[in-house]
Amino acid sequence: MYSFGKIGIICVGSLKEDYLRGAQAEFVKRLTPYGKLNIIEISQGVTAAEDAPKILKALSPNSHKIALAIEGKSPTSEAFARELSALASSGSSHLEFIIGGSTGLCPSVLAACNSRLSMSYMTFTHQLARIILLEQIYRACRILNNQPYHK
Amino acid sequence: MYSFGKIGIICVGSLKEDYLRGAQAEFVKRLTPYGKLNIIEISQGVTAAEDAPKILKALSPNSHKIALAIEGKSPTSEAFARELSALASSGSSHLEFIIGGSTGLCPSVLAACNSRLSMSYMTFTHQLARIILLEQIYRACRILNNQPYHK
Repeated sequence: MYSFGKIGIICVGSLKEDYLRGAQAEFVKRLTPYGKLNIIEISQGVTAAEDAPKILKALSPNSHKIALAIEGKSPTSEAFARELSALASSGSSHLEFIIGGSTGLCPSVLAACNSRLSMSYMTFTHQLARIILLEQIYRACRILNNQPYHK
Repeated sequence: MYSFGKIGIICVGSLKEDYLRGAQAEFVKRLTPYGKLNIIEISQGVTAAEDAPKILKALSPNSHKIALAIEGKSPTSEAFARELSALASSGSSHLEFIIGGSTGLCPSVLAACNSRLSMSYMTFTHQLARIILLEQIYRACRILNNQPYHK
């Protein structure tokens, strides 16, 4: 069975709405069989530069780091699943995704990351982006384990 | 003030989860000042071909119809907002978005539409796609009215 090992999601700002917290709780529950998921929330500062040292401190030294950024690669869900699988095969069993706050990610954080992922040309709130990312990780686990998942 | 006039969202299948219903309720409420929004749910059949006549029956004859389809145009949120504004200026004050069910949209439905919109290369559940679309319509209204909206 495919397991993602360990995934950390480092996010700036908290989920403000009940429905978003409900969505996160649902995906955290669904992802439990596939690995160890850790969501780290960092308090939102006034500027991205203010958020940066807190993000950098939260990152693990040996993880493979993926920044969510609109200019990043835009894979299909299947390509994203293959990428997660390839990372696991190459020994990167600890992934960290970084989602900036409302002022985005500082260049110093982007520079500390191994790659950038764009989920859409459209801008989502950082709160909704977190839910969409969780859903895509869950979808990847279903794809990689040949398990059905409604579209 | 920019108003979208009338928007219909024709969707196959219902929202199964509380958090998704909560999200829809929130965006329906937030969109109230900007126009008349109507969400029409069609019961999900076994195949896209089975859904098609029900969708075609639900469509209005004079609306501008936009199918959500992964092969469609992928605008940024700003470009999407400009497109909504341009449609309103050209006299299309009734838009209809069509979101297929888990078996997708039948070619006959795609043929009945004026254009296709892709929100991501990634596949979302049709339920989550509905929430993301509502959020993008709301974002477009905020952009077109120069109103702030957190990212």
